[in-house]
Amino acid sequence: MSAVLEGKPDKNLILVTGRSHPKLARNVACELGVDVLETTQYDFANGEMYVRYTQSVRGADVFVLQTATQPTNKYIMEHLIMIDALKRASANSITAVCPLMPYSRQDKKHQGREPISSRLVFDLLRTAGADRIMSVDLHAAQSQGFFDGPVDHLQAMPVLVDYVRDQLDLSNVAVVSPDAGRIKVAEQWALRLGGAPLSFVHKTRDITRPNHAVANRVVGDVEGKDCVLVDDLIDTGGTIVEACHVIMAAGAKSVTVVATHGVFSDPAVERLKSCGAREVVITDTVPIPAEKRWENLTVLSIAPLLASGIKAVFEDTSMADVFNNYPTHHGEFQLG
Amino acid sequence: MSAVLEGKPDKNLILVTGRSHPKLARNVACELGVDVLETTQYDFANGEMYVRYTQSVRGADVFVLQTATQPTNKYIMEHLIMIDALKRASANSITAVCPLMPYSRQDKKHQGREPISSRLVFDLLRTAGADRIMSVDLHAAQSQGFFDGPVDHLQAMPVLVDYVRDQLDLSNVAVVSPDAGRIKVAEQWALRLGGAPLSFVHKTRDITRPNHAVANRVVGDVEGKDCVLVDDLIDTGGTIVEACHVIMAAGAKSVTVVATHGVFSDPAVERLKSCGAREVVITDTVPIPAEKRWENLTVLSIAPLLASGIKAVFEDTSMADVFNNYPTHHGEFQLG
Amino acid sequence: MSAVLEGKPDKNLILVTGRSHPKLARNVACELGVDVLETTQYDFANGEMYVRYTQSVRGADVFVLQTATQPTNKYIMEHLIMIDALKRASANSITAVCPLMPYSRQDKKHQGREPISSRLVFDLLRTAGADRIMSVDLHAAQSQGFFDGPVDHLQAMPVLVDYVRDQLDLSNVAVVSPDAGRIKVAEQWALRLGGAPLSFVHKTRDITRPNHAVANRVVGDVEGKDCVLVDDLIDTGGTIVEACHVIMAAGAKSVTVVATHGVFSDPAVERLKSCGAREVVITDTVPIPAEKRWENLTVLSIAPLLASGIKAVFEDTSMADVFNNYPTHHGEFQLG
Amino acid sequence: MSAVLEGKPDKNLILVTGRSHPKLARNVACELGVDVLETTQYDFANGEMYVRYTQSVRGADVFVLQTATQPTNKYIMEHLIMIDALKRASANSITAVCPLMPYSRQDKKHQGREPISSRLVFDLLRTAGADRIMSVDLHAAQSQGFFDGPVDHLQAMPVLVDYVRDQLDLSNVAVVSPDAGRIKVAEQWALRLGGAPLSFVHKTRDITRPNHAVANRVVGDVEGKDCVLVDDLIDTGGTIVEACHVIMAAGAKSVTVVATHGVFSDPAVERLKSCGAREVVITDTVPIPAEKRWENLTVLSIAPLLASGIKAVFEDTSMADVFNNYPTHHGEFQLG
Amino acid sequence: MSAVLEGKPDKNLILVTGRSHPKLARNVACELGVDVLETTQYDFANGEMYVRYTQSVRGADVFVLQTATQPTNKYIMEHLIMIDALKRASANSITAVCPLMPYSRQDKKHQGREPISSRLVFDLLRTAGADRIMSVDLHAAQSQGFFDGPVDHLQAMPVLVDYVRDQLDLSNVAVVSPDAGRIKVAEQWALRLGGAPLSFVHKTRDITRPNHAVANRVVGDVEGKDCVLVDDLIDTGGTIVEACHVIMAAGAKSVTVVATHGVFSDPAVERLKSCGAREVVITDTVPIPAEKRWENLTVLSIAPLLASGIKAVFEDTSMADVFNNYPTHHGEFQLG
Amino acid sequence: MSAVLEGKPDKNLILVTGRSHPKLARNVACELGVDVLETTQYDFANGEMYVRYTQSVRGADVFVLQTATQPTNKYIMEHLIMIDALKRASANSITAVCPLMPYSRQDKKHQGREPISSRLVFDLLRTAGADRIMSVDLHAAQSQGFFDGPVDHLQAMPVLVDYVRDQLDLSNVAVVSPDAGRIKVAEQWALRLGGAPLSFVHKTRDITRPNHAVANRVVGDVEGKDCVLVDDLIDTGGTIVEACHVIMAAGAKSVTVVATHGVFSDPAVERLKSCGAREVVITDTVPIPAEKRWENLTVLSIAPLLASGIKAVFEDTSMADVFNNYPTHHGEFQLG
Repeated sequence: MSAVLEGKPDKNLILVTGRSHPKLARNVACELGVDVLETTQYDFANGEMYVRYTQSVRGADVFVLQTATQPTNKYIMEHLIMIDALKRASANSITAVCPLMPYSRQDKKHQGREPISSRLVFDLLRTAGADRIMSVDLHAAQSQGFFDGPVDHLQAMPVLVDYVRDQLDLSNVAVVSPDAGRIKVAEQWALRLGGAPLSFVHKTRDITRPNHAVANRVVGDVEGKDCVLVDDLIDTGGTIVEACHVIMAAGAKSVTVVATHGVFSDPAVERLKSCGAREVVITDTVPIPAEKRWENLTVLSIAPLLASGIKAVFEDTSMADVFNNYPTHHGEFQLG
Repeated sequence: MSAVLEGKPDKNLILVTGRSHPKLARNVACELGVDVLETTQYDFANGEMYVRYTQSVRGADVFVLQTATQPTNKYIMEHLIMIDALKRASANSITAVCPLMPYSRQDKKHQGREPISSRLVFDLLRTAGADRIMSVDLHAAQSQGFFDGPVDHLQAMPVLVDYVRDQLDLSNVAVVSPDAGRIKVAEQWALRLGGAPLSFVHKTRDITRPNHAVANRVVGDVEGKDCVLVDDLIDTGGTIVEACHVIMAAGAKSVTVVATHGVFSDPAVERLKSCGAREVVITDTVPIPAEKRWENLTVLSIAPLLASGIKAVFEDTSMADVFNNYPTHHGEFQLG
Repeated sequence: MSAVLEGKPDKNLILVTGRSHPKLARNVACELGVDVLETTQYDFANGEMYVRYTQSVRGADVFVLQTATQPTNKYIMEHLIMIDALKRASANSITAVCPLMPYSRQDKKHQGREPISSRLVFDLLRTAGADRIMSVDLHAAQSQGFFDGPVDHLQAMPVLVDYVRDQLDLSNVAVVSPDAGRIKVAEQWALRLGGAPLSFVHKTRDITRPNHAVANRVVGDVEGKDCVLVDDLIDTGGTIVEACHVIMAAGAKSVTVVATHGVFSDPAVERLKSCGAREVVITDTVPIPAEKRWENLTVLSIAPLLASGIKAVFEDTSMADVFNNYPTHHGEFQLG
Repeated sequence: MSAVLEGKPDKNLILVTGRSHPKLARNVACELGVDVLETTQYDFANGEMYVRYTQSVRGADVFVLQTATQPTNKYIMEHLIMIDALKRASANSITAVCPLMPYSRQDKKHQGREPISSRLVFDLLRTAGADRIMSVDLHAAQSQGFFDGPVDHLQAMPVLVDYVRDQLDLSNVAVVSPDAGRIKVAEQWALRLGGAPLSFVHKTRDITRPNHAVANRVVGDVEGKDCVLVDDLIDTGGTIVEACHVIMAAGAKSVTVVATHGVFSDPAVERLKSCGAREVVITDTVPIPAEKRWENLTVLSIAPLLASGIKAVFEDTSMADVFNNYPTHHGEFQLG
Repeated sequence: MSAVLEGKPDKNLILVTGRSHPKLARNVACELGVDVLETTQYDFANGEMYVRYTQSVRGADVFVLQTATQPTNKYIMEHLIMIDALKRASANSITAVCPLMPYSRQDKKHQGREPISSRLVFDLLRTAGADRIMSVDLHAAQSQGFFDGPVDHLQAMPVLVDYVRDQLDLSNVAVVSPDAGRIKVAEQWALRLGGAPLSFVHKTRDITRPNHAVANRVVGDVEGKDCVLVDDLIDTGGTIVEACHVIMAAGAKSVTVVATHGVFSDPAVERLKSCGAREVVITDTVPIPAEKRWENLTVLSIAPLLASGIKAVFEDTSMADVFNNYPTHHGEFQLG
Repeated sequence: MSAVLEGKPDKNLILVTGRSHPKLARNVACELGVDVLETTQYDFANGEMYVRYTQSVRGADVFVLQTATQPTNKYIMEHLIMIDALKRASANSITAVCPLMPYSRQDKKHQGREPISSRLVFDLLRTAGADRIMSVDLHAAQSQGFFDGPVDHLQAMPVLVDYVRDQLDLSNVAVVSPDAGRIKVAEQWALRLGGAPLSFVHKTRDITRPNHAVANRVVGDVEGKDCVLVDDLIDTGGTIVEACHVIMAAGAKSVTVVATHGVFSDPAVERLKSCGAREVVITDTVPIPAEKRWENLTVLSIAPLLASGIKAVFEDTSMADVFNNYPTHHGEFQLG
């Protein structure tokens, strides 16, 4: 006999999901050619949750999908509990897959004595046992630095740009940012749409007359243009719809609203339906139930992008290499 | 001039609270002779929360009160966010005061691939920035070891025992545990009630006939006795009410139900009202709204106990010394 | 030439052992089909220890076996030093295998200003470099939560139950817990022995007469029964032997004492020999030297259980799957 | 005798400085009414550095000032070494005061396989022993979240705004951002200057003709205006000077360049001297040697702001309270 | 009422001790003007230990004295358990006072697959909860770097030099190191004794004849000299006694053996008694029981040095300042 | 479909290098049979650095070579930034290969309030993301203990001894240490050169006459001998050249200077050229540019040693086994 027993088998990939967006998980699993691992998940009468995996996860590379949708805080806790169970069940590595990161907009202190809830969420995921984070279009790219480890930051822009290119006459397109904070994203859109002109909506608060109404106006030229109004996320829709009105008032020919994350908190749907946009285009990083869909809303699937990212992580291949095979016109994925 | 500027002022105590149990926080503050520090707290439309303190907390010893009540997971996240904000706002020390710790019953793995959610919650509090934990009657005393730092583990038993002593004829009292897992607590009650006899309800599952009904029976003697049926927590009330019936069926003269935490998830109130107990006694570690109160329910205040604990921490005096001055008959507090 | 050199070989399993229980290590190795890796281990004249491995452990999954037996503290330190050496010698993973965890009964604070030595031991193992813990029948299952990582918590009950089933007439068996704290274990035994009746010994201290003798009595019915008196661990044997006497005095037909860990500190052996039990059944999680063995002591081997656990960890297979192939009547292993 | 020795003296404040900006340290010390603590600091022949404090720092709250100026990497290492020495010399708390944080612009990954050097610098400061960070106008406010502890994020804007208000006719002012990334800062300026109009310079790269020249143009209206061109930092000056030209070409009446950090890497000074701006206004967060100063450069002192921040930290008073007493017209400091 | 409760009392100093050297603890307490805090400490029958403090330690600066003496590993564990109890009992700071650090000679790997036990001990103390270490004459000064925090490294040399100066004619003194590894210490002695000549004993192993005897010889001149043979620690005395013989054989007039730590493992006392040295001088960093003392052994007290160090830590004064008031001829303490 | 996707590919080895010693990296790569992975590295105008890898490093075992040479601090920062980028790009493991560790001589506090910069550097590497350190001839072997993980400590002595053996008549050789601190290394040399006699140079400072000149003298016999003067590192050459003179003055026949690290800070080269040594022998752990080379300087290649170490780490084979195949006469490598 020898003192050494040789021959440990290969590692395996497992996909599990919380209860925030099971349909997306199934779609991702389908792209990967696996099933989502069945998990026992329910709420106790007192509001606490129970989680248990029905099969062994020992030594596997596990991807845990959960997105930010209501009830947001409950789903965060479910994510953490699922990760804790994986850690204690000897998973080889744990990747928290968050198509939309919760609290990603609370990424800095605006005033004293505020939390930085986005950093907190990254820290909680780490504490629970996540080795790596995968997300799509973080509100600020700086949030990648909130994690002390790899963050695979996928961008939905190629998916969205491909679609928009086919809908509009590019020679008459103008890109508009709904406020000052989103101009950098709009600038990338302008570039990808062939150097389209760029504008933004400026919200002015007249500080000499404190209770005076806010006057919004377009800075830049939109008259007669097919405007693409871009944002990373639509929540209640207030900003985007107001921008829509201002642009129309400034003489735009049409407005197409584009965003990665369609959160659609009330009264977003009502506002968007009646804002005058010719089309609203989003992806399914959060679930869009039937009652939040309407005629000129287009929901593109994010599953192929997530599946490609997961596969690259599992197979230790370059994200860039993988995405060159992704069915986009120009392969211009920018990856974290 | 010298290279040293002397003279830093004394430290201060500040009490803040999440939205789970504001009334208890006010009562504790009242006992301490301070106000609860005003805090801006609200939910965004997408379900995320916002927190900000209205006054400086720099250099203060801050106590953050939050208890486990529905929506439990949301209140956990609020607790974490509040602590994060305190950490970043330069509090000198942060004590998480959790009258009832959430997930405290998920303190071990019953089967493989389960989480240990109670340890997870302690870890999350640490990660957010808590230096110390204060709680009342943890489900298992071992949970103190889930935290790498001081845990002030207060016991409500003296408060409850004092009350019960005045209600019953101690010479005819018997103490009963509703199941095998709670006998240790029942044993302490028997001791404090002058060496009263002890029984427990044994749940038998007949493994040879899987779907056969469970047969419960009292192990020990309760006939003609004024039974005190004790537990740490009443959730849906199933176990305690069943025990009540079994005890009555075994010839008990009366049953008084006593527990620290009155969680009262549905259908606890209905069950308890009709279970035949002469009185149900709990403390207010969780809020008991008017619709969950009924005639023979007695709710004792936990605020004096929490206030004494907080004061001992702040003044660096012994918990034991403080509680000797607490208005109980025998001063038999056992402290963590 | 390429920038990448491909092809890292497979991982290997290595078993090493401290000096607390070399025979058990050899038995486990034998079950695994390997030799225990030879290790240089000795004491310096000043009481410090020296450890060095005679072969490379680079990249191996190493299991380090050490159990809690006298001199306990020295063996803890040896365990830590062995793990430190493995960490610095580039082991791929380090599992501390502790058939009996030292200090596992000091798992909570009974009074203020006490340590939680059990949590401390878990922390020390982590600090030294252990990635994972494997143990058998922890005093409280909650201790699994003392470790921030996987704890493989094996249960000896199937091994013990199998043996007891063959010795007694199950139709006349009663299960007895020696005190209130062990009833949950006794309840599991009652279940596994076909729904046997359950009793426990109640220790009463009469607090009104401080120096009065303690009166123990059986709560439940044992008259004419073949009693199985169960505990996790027998140390000096005081509690178990006293329980034995009380049960016999209450009319039991016979008493069989069963426990996982036979620590047998003085005067346990003397007490057990003369306690009237028909048989004492334990496993060899701690060494039982010849002078601590007597006629009606039965020592069952824990090595097959440990070997199965180690193999499951190394091969990343489910503990549950492995134990289904373990030679027990009903495969009812419950695993952490 | 008692077992307790009472009476620990008060804490003290000490200010030390690296060699990057000694003059600023002296000015801050002067505002605080102390001397900078004398420190032995020199380079060995091999390029390594030596640091030692000439007086005891035991128990003191120490503030260590170092800013980002060339040789940048050497000064980072000096900062870390100074903090390490303080930690080992038993300072009570250590605050790293970084008027300009090094690597603060590398705060995210633009492409795969890049570092996030800004997060790294925060981590290095933490590892060396810093408990807290104080800085002025971080490139992205999100960087506060790179530190797991308090970051006192001071803003120079009030200092700069006060000065600019006195130089220009506010009724004819327009605020301009030199590119899309800085519009949010410009927006704040517009607000503070009484709701001034806002524009930005749009850099277009025509992707259909890869090697074609970039066409910059002003989005918004600047004709006839006294433009305030704002940025957080001027490095080589390329962007700001180009923006200056574009604005002038678009018919601006005058351009005043304003920034917090005057890094002035070559050829910034040459460019700025000849860019046509009526004035360039910065603060002294980095040293501006005589040879980098010219007639229409104005350097405002940041020392009073830093001194106020340090005092608030030391005295545990609110930053906000302190700054209300700061000699600005409107007290509109926004503090981290 | 206000939201803030003001006025936290001053911090206190408490001294506690393990069971390794209670007499030294009493002497240190006496120098400090306090009593050692009474502690309940005993061994269970199974070899585990119990610790509890009899008074509150909340908010105190606690110093925990334990030294390296047999049974060494048990005393290390006792030290760790005592520190864990202090951490959980809310001590403000915990200083591990280790006059002789255990395992301090295992401070590097001599071969592959060895532990670095000295670093491990520092890590264990940190994990248990020690904020700071105080020790006397570490085997290698580099060990200070094993701790991520303050190490107060006291030197006994002034105590020893003062004594030796009074015993010998300094004009005829020569300093000798017993081997190559201790020459740096001997060099300091030579300096402090007025520039005395320096020698060392060279152990030669003739590698061409593997089993040949080792030939030791003095490198340097000792003929007719009153030799001071210095080491940090005397364990079994082999090296020092052999050196003694070699020096005498080389014509030395007399030999005085001096060391800080008198570990005196068997057969050190026998060897030293008969080695021909005129005197052996040590301190009491480890206990020297009556049976290990003989006529020409001198034991100097280390208590005043430790008390001065503890006082400096508690009062946040400079170690250097304190020791200038220490009754030595020249105040040449070198402090960590 | 199954819930598990099987089959993760093998791990790969990648070598990258900072800009401190690219030639050594190329030589090591050549020995390994790979190319150095191309890396984009440059300085911004403000002195900050940029790093990006041109190919994927996902899942690879990456070795990052950087040595201590001027500008030292910049190269440390580059090393840290490179490691941070690898961590965030999902390298499987990161080994910092530091042929000469920066700040390795600042490994302890000589006086109060000094840093321990060597420990700091180890901590910084860990924080950036290094899992393991590889270095050659650390100034003190204790520094291995500064890292909480594996340190592969290679020794150049076999390389140097092999060379020296061929140059000198071993029967007339004497080994000399340039001061008291290096005698242990000299002792090893004496052993490896067949039991050669050993001497050292004693620096005396006469403390009674503070400003008096230092008198150096040889302790031991060097007359007529071919002396090998050994050190780990030559910096400005002051100590070694002074020792050279003292040895020659004491009648040595010849002096051969040998050291691992040829730092050669000014004025080392001038001093060494004219010191009278027959030859100076070093390795290329730091770059030796043409202008620092002269006729009787011999530079041996360290690349084969580093390559063997890297290969052993990657292939999880024993260092000892690998080095037995290294082309040295006697295979006497001692490895960490």
